[in-house]
Amino acid sequence: MTTKYTLNETDIPRAWLNIVPALPSPPPPALHPGTLQPAGPDDFAPLFPMDLIMQEVSMEPFIEIPEAVMDVYRLWRPTPLYRAHRLEKALGTPAHIYYKYEGTSPAGSHKPNTAVPQAYYNAKAGVKKLTTETGAGQWGTALAFACAQFDIECEVWQVRASYDAKPYRRLMMEVFGATVHPSPSDLTASGRAILAQNPDSPGSLGIAISEAVEVAAPRADTRYALGSVLNHVLLHQTVIGQEALKQFEQAGEYPDVIYGCVGGGSNFGGLTFPFLAENLAGRRNTRIVAVEPAACPSMTKGVYAYDFGDTAGMTPLMKMHTLGKDFIPDTIHAGGLRYHGMSPLVSHIYELGLIEAESKNQLDCFAAGVQFARTEGIIPAPEPTHALAACIEEALRCKETGETKVILTALCGHGMLDLAAYDNYLSGNLVDYDYPAEAIQAALAGLPKI
Amino acid sequence: MTTKYTLNETDIPRAWLNIVPALPSPPPPALHPGTLQPAGPDDFAPLFPMDLIMQEVSMEPFIEIPEAVMDVYRLWRPTPLYRAHRLEKALGTPAHIYYKYEGTSPAGSHKPNTAVPQAYYNAKAGVKKLTTETGAGQWGTALAFACAQFDIECEVWQVRASYDAKPYRRLMMEVFGATVHPSPSDLTASGRAILAQNPDSPGSLGIAISEAVEVAAPRADTRYALGSVLNHVLLHQTVIGQEALKQFEQAGEYPDVIYGCVGGGSNFGGLTFPFLAENLAGRRNTRIVAVEPAACPSMTKGVYAYDFGDTAGMTPLMKMHTLGKDFIPDTIHAGGLRYHGMSPLVSHIYELGLIEAESKNQLDCFAAGVQFARTEGIIPAPEPTHALAACIEEALRCKETGETKVILTALCGHGMLDLAAYDNYLSGNLVDYDYPAEAIQAALAGLPKI
Repeated sequence: MTTKYTLNETDIPRAWLNIVPALPSPPPPALHPGTLQPAGPDDFAPLFPMDLIMQEVSMEPFIEIPEAVMDVYRLWRPTPLYRAHRLEKALGTPAHIYYKYEGTSPAGSHKPNTAVPQAYYNAKAGVKKLTTETGAGQWGTALAFACAQFDIECEVWQVRASYDAKPYRRLMMEVFGATVHPSPSDLTASGRAILAQNPDSPGSLGIAISEAVEVAAPRADTRYALGSVLNHVLLHQTVIGQEALKQFEQAGEYPDVIYGCVGGGSNFGGLTFPFLAENLAGRRNTRIVAVEPAACPSMTKGVYAYDFGDTAGMTPLMKMHTLGKDFIPDTIHAGGLRYHGMSPLVSHIYELGLIEAESKNQLDCFAAGVQFARTEGIIPAPEPTHALAACIEEALRCKETGETKVILTALCGHGMLDLAAYDNYLSGNLVDYDYPAEAIQAALAGLPKI
Repeated sequence: MTTKYTLNETDIPRAWLNIVPALPSPPPPALHPGTLQPAGPDDFAPLFPMDLIMQEVSMEPFIEIPEAVMDVYRLWRPTPLYRAHRLEKALGTPAHIYYKYEGTSPAGSHKPNTAVPQAYYNAKAGVKKLTTETGAGQWGTALAFACAQFDIECEVWQVRASYDAKPYRRLMMEVFGATVHPSPSDLTASGRAILAQNPDSPGSLGIAISEAVEVAAPRADTRYALGSVLNHVLLHQTVIGQEALKQFEQAGEYPDVIYGCVGGGSNFGGLTFPFLAENLAGRRNTRIVAVEPAACPSMTKGVYAYDFGDTAGMTPLMKMHTLGKDFIPDTIHAGGLRYHGMSPLVSHIYELGLIEAESKNQLDCFAAGVQFARTEGIIPAPEPTHALAACIEEALRCKETGETKVILTALCGHGMLDLAAYDNYLSGNLVDYDYPAEAIQAALAGLPKI
């Protein structure tokens, strides 16, 4: 009875999988906010090195992974694919539940999969410092680690709610050598503008992005790194799904349905795109479901429209599912899912009807997280508990119907630095937030008129 | 260039290796504190189930691992053996540095290797509740997880210094379903006696053991579990070294020297005993070095004598290297190494001249930990930084001499829940404690006269 499917270092994918050329139509282009014309490489050049910009718009089906990136990937990749025998038994389900576990990375999540190549391409282009935002702290940790590998400075704006709730995340970034500020901060014009309106602002990913972008854009030796949302970020994450495909070959099974949590979309895209490619090639027909928090439901309750990626409106306009850039989500513990928008690529694929979406509230998610921890031994980060809750629901449906479905979920990180959230839950103090209809309506009213 | 040597589930050892029959002489027996006669199985029966007592005194060279234990081991075993290419490069050493990493377990350390069989044998014997102590929190977490697998209650006395400094450790135990008390507590006579002398006592492993033993001994359905020190605990940990032997076969190398940190001795014994067996069989001649904290130097500054395992004097007497049961170490961050004694088996092997010992102070250890984190990506727990510091010293000696030595160290756990200690170090607030000569002298004066 196999519990985990492991691969050798030689099985780490040698190339990232680009889903775009396999789609029936490409996603709509980003627009320059002034001209409203499609944004070209030059519009992105103040923020990103050219290698990453070219990946952002590439139509190549595969992009080779540089050897220097492989060298760092080998520290934790390939990651294990687990069969959740003990959870299945506890649920009494005939379903086969699998999880691809990314928590063995230095940051404890999937984020280093893209942090490492981003730091590498920036170092290659002569960049001396990267700025970024972080919500849950996972992305900031990953970038801090990656920058240490390529001798680049790293400066992080951590969403205030998370900065206060998760001191260990800041400390972890500092151990890797990064500098960390709470966001909104008084170090930037966009931070000061938010603080002027609300000195106690809990912050949001959108605000933190504005601050990091504002610092990077005008400086020649400084660039910005984004932990999700963009095509090149999702591209780098496809090592996850490519490994999982090989591991299902070992298992002699194939997933009927995949659940992945979505915030910006990189964990979801990373696991599911290689399986989507199999669907698009007509070889398979797996249901693929994005699971988002009920408190920040960009796919299930947002609109599909052009909007800014950040709160201050400094980024190019991207067509995506959005709740409006001014929407500040309630401070749910899944800080990594508190983003007003959704990856334009995931949004486009959703519009094409190739994937589904649903939402979960946080009490159900933490219940799933505790059940998972006590059976499988891994305490999940709050983000992937959204997908776990959907998984468990599906497994219990199978118990009713007697179906032996194969269910796969992305366990994108552990929750060792999220234990205060579990304490909150176990002590009965965790609340569910109502669907924030009014706040979303107000934010959507401010969408750019295009 | 291989970074990590991974094994398949089928490579998990099927038996634990018992080093005792391979030794030139067996370790001296434990004594009943009243009669001073060798303690028999009945003397241990109030504390442990008979299967574990028989393992404690076994002369079989191998003891088969039960299938129910293998089932749980598969959640994280085999663990990876890493070649520290990036650390070697940073040091500029010709030495080859390897580390066997146990931090991928549910508790984040090697402790579940014995927590799982201990919970299993207790459940098999009909035990309903296990009590225990925990220093760094690693052992308590491991036992909490293991008890959840076999449906046993778990009650933990956590050393006060650690309880206060590491709230996340308590939370982790609670997520796994355990009940946690700070020690000394007012729940036991031994705890109350300590508090009467010093209401602000930081506690120690010895005190916490007294409390857990006091609660377990008189109750028919309750037993006690120890996370280190005893023969059966070290026995269970030998899965580590057995895997490492196979992994060195893959690597085509063999360690010239092994460094392992020692508190109670279980991590050290677990990694090194299979290599020691190769030495004893005359096939190899690896140097094996135990590294302990300068603030709690039982091997390098203690005496080899009969002493109690706990502070209140409730356990059988064990011949071991000890600083005296009343010695309360300074509150170094390596909470798992704050124990007055040393495993009787490790002590005996040290007396036989089969291993060496040295001590490190905590500033050097944290410097090694930060260098390791920034190069290898894993933030080590404070305990294994002692061995890392010795490793780095050896690698730098090799740089001087040009020797291509193969160095192995036991990286027994990660430090994600020890980040406050790193913060302390990085902000310049960490102190070194002087060798506590007077306190040790005073404690040694109280040794039982045998």
